[in-house]
Amino acid sequence: MKKLWGGRFKKEMHPLLFKLSGSLSYDKKLARYDLLGSVAHAKMLGRTKIIPPKDSARIVRGLESLLRDLEKGKLSLSGKYEDIHSLIQDALDKRIGAVGHKLHTARSRNDQVTLDTRLYCREEGRKIQLKLRGLQRVFVELAKGHVEHVIPGYTHSQHAQPVALSHHFLAYCGMLERDKQRIGDALKRMDELPLGSGALAGSSLPIDRFYVARLLGFSRVSQNSLDAVSDRDYVIELLSTVSILSLHLSRMSEEFIAWSSPEFGFLELDDAFCTGSSLMPQKKNPDPLELIRGTTGRIYGNLVSVLVTLKGIPLAYNRDMQLDKEPLFDSIERMELILDILSELLPKVAFHVLQIDRQLKDEGLYAADLVEYLVRKGIAFREAHDIIGHLIRDSLELGKRLSDRPLSDFRKICPRFEKDVYNLMDPYRSVDSKNVVGGTARNRVRQQIQRWERILKNA
Amino acid sequence: MKKLWGGRFKKEMHPLLFKLSGSLSYDKKLARYDLLGSVAHAKMLGRTKIIPPKDSARIVRGLESLLRDLEKGKLSLSGKYEDIHSLIQDALDKRIGAVGHKLHTARSRNDQVTLDTRLYCREEGRKIQLKLRGLQRVFVELAKGHVEHVIPGYTHSQHAQPVALSHHFLAYCGMLERDKQRIGDALKRMDELPLGSGALAGSSLPIDRFYVARLLGFSRVSQNSLDAVSDRDYVIELLSTVSILSLHLSRMSEEFIAWSSPEFGFLELDDAFCTGSSLMPQKKNPDPLELIRGTTGRIYGNLVSVLVTLKGIPLAYNRDMQLDKEPLFDSIERMELILDILSELLPKVAFHVLQIDRQLKDEGLYAADLVEYLVRKGIAFREAHDIIGHLIRDSLELGKRLSDRPLSDFRKICPRFEKDVYNLMDPYRSVDSKNVVGGTARNRVRQQIQRWERILKNA
Amino acid sequence: MKKLWGGRFKKEMHPLLFKLSGSLSYDKKLARYDLLGSVAHAKMLGRTKIIPPKDSARIVRGLESLLRDLEKGKLSLSGKYEDIHSLIQDALDKRIGAVGHKLHTARSRNDQVTLDTRLYCREEGRKIQLKLRGLQRVFVELAKGHVEHVIPGYTHSQHAQPVALSHHFLAYCGMLERDKQRIGDALKRMDELPLGSGALAGSSLPIDRFYVARLLGFSRVSQNSLDAVSDRDYVIELLSTVSILSLHLSRMSEEFIAWSSPEFGFLELDDAFCTGSSLMPQKKNPDPLELIRGTTGRIYGNLVSVLVTLKGIPLAYNRDMQLDKEPLFDSIERMELILDILSELLPKVAFHVLQIDRQLKDEGLYAADLVEYLVRKGIAFREAHDIIGHLIRDSLELGKRLSDRPLSDFRKICPRFEKDVYNLMDPYRSVDSKNVVGGTARNRVRQQIQRWERILKNA
Amino acid sequence: MKKLWGGRFKKEMHPLLFKLSGSLSYDKKLARYDLLGSVAHAKMLGRTKIIPPKDSARIVRGLESLLRDLEKGKLSLSGKYEDIHSLIQDALDKRIGAVGHKLHTARSRNDQVTLDTRLYCREEGRKIQLKLRGLQRVFVELAKGHVEHVIPGYTHSQHAQPVALSHHFLAYCGMLERDKQRIGDALKRMDELPLGSGALAGSSLPIDRFYVARLLGFSRVSQNSLDAVSDRDYVIELLSTVSILSLHLSRMSEEFIAWSSPEFGFLELDDAFCTGSSLMPQKKNPDPLELIRGTTGRIYGNLVSVLVTLKGIPLAYNRDMQLDKEPLFDSIERMELILDILSELLPKVAFHVLQIDRQLKDEGLYAADLVEYLVRKGIAFREAHDIIGHLIRDSLELGKRLSDRPLSDFRKICPRFEKDVYNLMDPYRSVDSKNVVGGTARNRVRQQIQRWERILKNA
Repeated sequence: MKKLWGGRFKKEMHPLLFKLSGSLSYDKKLARYDLLGSVAHAKMLGRTKIIPPKDSARIVRGLESLLRDLEKGKLSLSGKYEDIHSLIQDALDKRIGAVGHKLHTARSRNDQVTLDTRLYCREEGRKIQLKLRGLQRVFVELAKGHVEHVIPGYTHSQHAQPVALSHHFLAYCGMLERDKQRIGDALKRMDELPLGSGALAGSSLPIDRFYVARLLGFSRVSQNSLDAVSDRDYVIELLSTVSILSLHLSRMSEEFIAWSSPEFGFLELDDAFCTGSSLMPQKKNPDPLELIRGTTGRIYGNLVSVLVTLKGIPLAYNRDMQLDKEPLFDSIERMELILDILSELLPKVAFHVLQIDRQLKDEGLYAADLVEYLVRKGIAFREAHDIIGHLIRDSLELGKRLSDRPLSDFRKICPRFEKDVYNLMDPYRSVDSKNVVGGTARNRVRQQIQRWERILKNA
Repeated sequence: MKKLWGGRFKKEMHPLLFKLSGSLSYDKKLARYDLLGSVAHAKMLGRTKIIPPKDSARIVRGLESLLRDLEKGKLSLSGKYEDIHSLIQDALDKRIGAVGHKLHTARSRNDQVTLDTRLYCREEGRKIQLKLRGLQRVFVELAKGHVEHVIPGYTHSQHAQPVALSHHFLAYCGMLERDKQRIGDALKRMDELPLGSGALAGSSLPIDRFYVARLLGFSRVSQNSLDAVSDRDYVIELLSTVSILSLHLSRMSEEFIAWSSPEFGFLELDDAFCTGSSLMPQKKNPDPLELIRGTTGRIYGNLVSVLVTLKGIPLAYNRDMQLDKEPLFDSIERMELILDILSELLPKVAFHVLQIDRQLKDEGLYAADLVEYLVRKGIAFREAHDIIGHLIRDSLELGKRLSDRPLSDFRKICPRFEKDVYNLMDPYRSVDSKNVVGGTARNRVRQQIQRWERILKNA
Repeated sequence: MKKLWGGRFKKEMHPLLFKLSGSLSYDKKLARYDLLGSVAHAKMLGRTKIIPPKDSARIVRGLESLLRDLEKGKLSLSGKYEDIHSLIQDALDKRIGAVGHKLHTARSRNDQVTLDTRLYCREEGRKIQLKLRGLQRVFVELAKGHVEHVIPGYTHSQHAQPVALSHHFLAYCGMLERDKQRIGDALKRMDELPLGSGALAGSSLPIDRFYVARLLGFSRVSQNSLDAVSDRDYVIELLSTVSILSLHLSRMSEEFIAWSSPEFGFLELDDAFCTGSSLMPQKKNPDPLELIRGTTGRIYGNLVSVLVTLKGIPLAYNRDMQLDKEPLFDSIERMELILDILSELLPKVAFHVLQIDRQLKDEGLYAADLVEYLVRKGIAFREAHDIIGHLIRDSLELGKRLSDRPLSDFRKICPRFEKDVYNLMDPYRSVDSKNVVGGTARNRVRQQIQRWERILKNA
Repeated sequence: MKKLWGGRFKKEMHPLLFKLSGSLSYDKKLARYDLLGSVAHAKMLGRTKIIPPKDSARIVRGLESLLRDLEKGKLSLSGKYEDIHSLIQDALDKRIGAVGHKLHTARSRNDQVTLDTRLYCREEGRKIQLKLRGLQRVFVELAKGHVEHVIPGYTHSQHAQPVALSHHFLAYCGMLERDKQRIGDALKRMDELPLGSGALAGSSLPIDRFYVARLLGFSRVSQNSLDAVSDRDYVIELLSTVSILSLHLSRMSEEFIAWSSPEFGFLELDDAFCTGSSLMPQKKNPDPLELIRGTTGRIYGNLVSVLVTLKGIPLAYNRDMQLDKEPLFDSIERMELILDILSELLPKVAFHVLQIDRQLKDEGLYAADLVEYLVRKGIAFREAHDIIGHLIRDSLELGKRLSDRPLSDFRKICPRFEKDVYNLMDPYRSVDSKNVVGGTARNRVRQQIQRWERILKNA
């Protein structure tokens, strides 16, 4: 095994330790970032004359050829290496010979690995932001297609008040906006070059950290070497952010699963996004939604994993910290796949308006409108609430619909009722009456749509 | 039991449900915010003429008198009430009579409770920011007092390279800065009035949400009523932020505990921050640090609790969501106490310089400096690393200190060694050689201190 | 403040440390166990002559009078004490004078607190077992009342195959049985006296641990003092067990919430177990079920909390370990309340058979029966599955029900179909055909019921 | 793509769904169990004449040849299959033709996959038990080699009382015993055949579940088909158990890491179990211990993952449940590797007795012995504690060791002191005085060792 240390050791590493501690199987995902970081580092070593400029140039050319091979899928990413850093160092040495031995000057794996991981997080964070924007657009398109459709709104999984289906979609659009912003905040905070912190103390060689930062597109350099190599906040922050995003998607999945049950029958997924049963030929299951809901467990677990691993370990680098990568990669990759699949799946959902309309006949949905009707007639809110409550209880006992009862019944309980009370029990009227900012009135929803189109164009 | 609903119900609530669902025992912490929110709401109801202005004025006066009583500790916050909202409504009714029944017009507990919780989070978020700034100042003061003290820096709990003790303190100062910023980001995102979203759909009454926002100091109003009442992102975001902060403090506590062990003997806490043993009279235990380290478990648990509770529940409000409050309050209160105690405890820590200095005699601490010495003499980094590695192994086998070996021994393995190599094995020289941005050289540390003083003055 | 240590200290405890480290507010729940443990310890001290028997007798009388006061609610459990142990020691001293100072001989708070916690866990573990048995009986009663009711069984929230409603109830009965057994295993493992382990090393006084074990009903004494004071496995084991139990109840709650939605309409909770809305008078919400579902988050969070707190702390006692109690008490108390409420709520649920029956008309529910029909006619399973699959797809396209299609249609796709195929599309026939152990045939369900009645009688 | 369903579907599965839902990449680990389960199922189908016995025999032969290929590593476990079940069905079909289509008769993937997972858990649970026994033996051997070595015992990371190093090792042996028993309890509970539960309702074919159970070595069959396919308790129970085990190992790792720091210097790992630094040639880091400590995060995360995934999903099978496998496999595999490495690493640890002995000179370690000395002289415990506390404070102020002070100093504070008090400040005397069951006296430790040798022989 080729490794980057060992002069003082008298024995070879035990194979079980190699199995436990080797990280190549997963940190090979950092290959590109490791190469990019090394190119910048090598350029700086030459520019500052820490190594002869011609050595720097040869190292840079060597790394760039590895990078090209990597992009073409021609760089082997396996072998008996401790980690991706050792693999790349060895590949470089094979390509350019002993001059490669100068690359690691003024650098430690401690600052190198946190640089690579930051570059990965930056790239994937931006990618998720783009995918979120894409998914928001899907919701906006869905909203545009369903402004005229009203559904029963729910609280406690019970009918509450009618809402525009488009309003419901835009609720998710708003959640995703916060998710996108949170990632933006994390990106802003992680925009800081850690390289040059060495193992923990900095370097005694005259490195130029600002130059490296510029080459790699960082706007700041870290200000404390101990903190820089010990810090994994950016990993946790991304995992926290993805956890909240996953929570949002679990809620949406739960709803869509319920809505696709035969009892609801509000929607149906496209065949291409369902699977069947090995035993029951009729089955058409909303698998992707179940998997998205279930993956929330996985994504929370990954967050917990890193939080726990870092708890109570002293500064600076400890080997425990290597365990941050698998949970990070796993959450990122799963979430990206989920965002991709939702962007394909959602536009193909069929909504069954007739089934939905049947539920809008439930007059309980209009009870709050009746209360506010009485309020407009000058009755104190609490009394109005009470009046409608008794009216409903009464109707339940009589087994009659409110709209089938004569006005006299209404007036018996409150003389302010007029004939126009019957008009209230209508989904469109109900929805449009919520004519406040953020309310579900159709014109308000159209304003929301315009706002989102504006935001998403510039985003 | 007085409650805010019930017209349609034929039975009283079962006492066990009251026990399970009653939230007064903890949501009484929201009393102040509930009153403030109600004052603003009542003013708006009058201003928009939804209720007669004179009714509005009477309600506002009633609420303000309750607020005064609350501040004086004269408002009873117990009784047979479902929640703080019911308690306050009842207290108001008792004070001003039936006109109080108009307060809840155009409002639901769904938008009310999320308003109250936001106000709480905003207040406590700001408070934690201030406490963090205070603790940062403590670290800066400690750093100022210890610029001349060098300690062994550690990786893997093994001696790595010497660092300035002040540099170590400033590493924590940097972590806290990110914590503060994260809270700032959360505050920015939660700066949005949810009131006016009603139960889930908005209101059919002509409310003025912008006016309420202005009164309560929110810079935006929520744009989607469904999202507004379903959203607890701000709770989770705060809990995530406090979790990372707690992780930082667990690392610091772990270090200080280790450093106060007899084997390290680097520091000693003041008697006032230790406890003894009921059996062993000699004991002086660093209890607060252990409790801070252990509380990380609690704070992670609270985060997990809310994440799990919200997983997979449909829009809009569900009763599960009530369970967000206890974990939120618990994490906030524990963290504030921890920040307070650290700000008192840290300035009184005694550092035992002699004990620390003993460890600096470990010549392994200077090995990397020796490598960079050879690099400066033109040897490739890897070769230099190898040379020093063998020199160390050699010395271990001979049982000799490096500084006790003659120059000839050095030269045998590499002729570039000169007499000045002996000068390297000195903690101050070592530290000062890390003269890069973020490095541990004393002048760099002094620059860091100045930077922090500037930042913390304006913060 | 009275405390059990302090000779070597020159300063009083800082009030913030008292606030952070004081545990009386919650460990007062251990008062009874602390007294019982102390009684046994004091008896042993006298019997072994470690203290004069008459002193032992006076201490025991003192403790027993405190115990009586406690049971009558006359023992004050507040004051400026570090913990319940200090409070009780002080109460004893006040009652019997200086002889009380001998009680703590050959004991440390380290072995005392783990004894108290074990006694608490043993008592509550048994209590939960009893409550689980009670809830199982409720499910068995429900099953007995619904053997003749068939519901659509679900996988992926889609109609799968008909099952007896009673079969569904008994599925939960089985889960609770495993929960009960897990608690039994935990109880068996925690049945071990830790007292006599001192702070960590044992005692140099001639204590009789077996005698104390006998008095307190433990069947074993711990075998290693270091392990005994460091061990909190029994707390975590109970929290893990309660977590799985909570998971089971979250699944049941989820189902019952869905089933009580208007779209399902399968069941309705009793008014006494629902609450309404402050805005929408029609609302009747299944709050306890939502709270039970949501509490799962809390109970998982408590488990995580203790797991994390104990991670990576060295032997033996560390102050972090004090943080095990609040999560423990919280999970136990919430779970007991949940079990109580379910035992009251479930028998009063009204099932709406007509609504359920409407769903049984979905012929997809009988597709697997049709497959097995063809298998019995000698067709290979996979071919049979395919045939029925195509038949269904065909019918969907035609917009016809299977049972409305002529036999010739069936025979066109497979000539083995006979007239009896129409008989299969019947819920009772379908259910009864699953006549295997564990199957949902009504006679099998009756056997299950008998089995449970036998088990629960003896439990 | 070959799949086990699809007759009713008009479209092919979307490639993104295949990517999200395909499980072959990990459930291929179940190949062996899937084959074993299928063999037993096929035998039963023949024996009961559900399929012709000669078909059964051909299927069994086909499966057995696949099993042989698998064991030889000749069965390809990749390809465009949804899962391992589809892969194996297809491999069977290729080998034996259309008769293979009869294998899935009276079976669903829902009962098949839980059978496979149970068989996996049973096998790995037993394997971990054996590895635990192996590790216990390592601790017993270590204990045997260190009965004569005394170390300072710690509470709160401070010197508490001397303990035998062997006593410390046996504390871990006891923890592992509980871990082993917990796995035993889980194994006992999972010893139940789920096959025959079909998709959720059982089967309408005359299967013989007891015969299958006998073939597969299960002592019971499941009693409720709904429960059987919905249940993942056994997965969580194993993950909970492994979490506690991991917690134990994290504590041990933490200690060994601290003890191998230069400040403690109590022990040194063998070179083969350490790694170095790419920058600092002197470094020799205790990596495996750090990774074991850190892996606790991962293992907790896996537990959380499955707990969360199952929260709040209805009966019976839901696709979310597929997400139980990766966390399960991951925790099992990591733990097995950890147990293997510890069993190799621990016997090669070098203990530095001289360094340890230096710490035993701390006279605080004997303070509790001094208290008990006074108790034996008839002084009440609390007074004795106070006397020694003041003596220590006094000595600290004078800057003198207790043993250097004349007897007159002792007598001034308490006249009962005799000359023999000086004898107490000796580690061996201190240790041997803890002559109680579970105490650290050397003869007690020898008894513990004998007890473990007895237990581990029969285990």
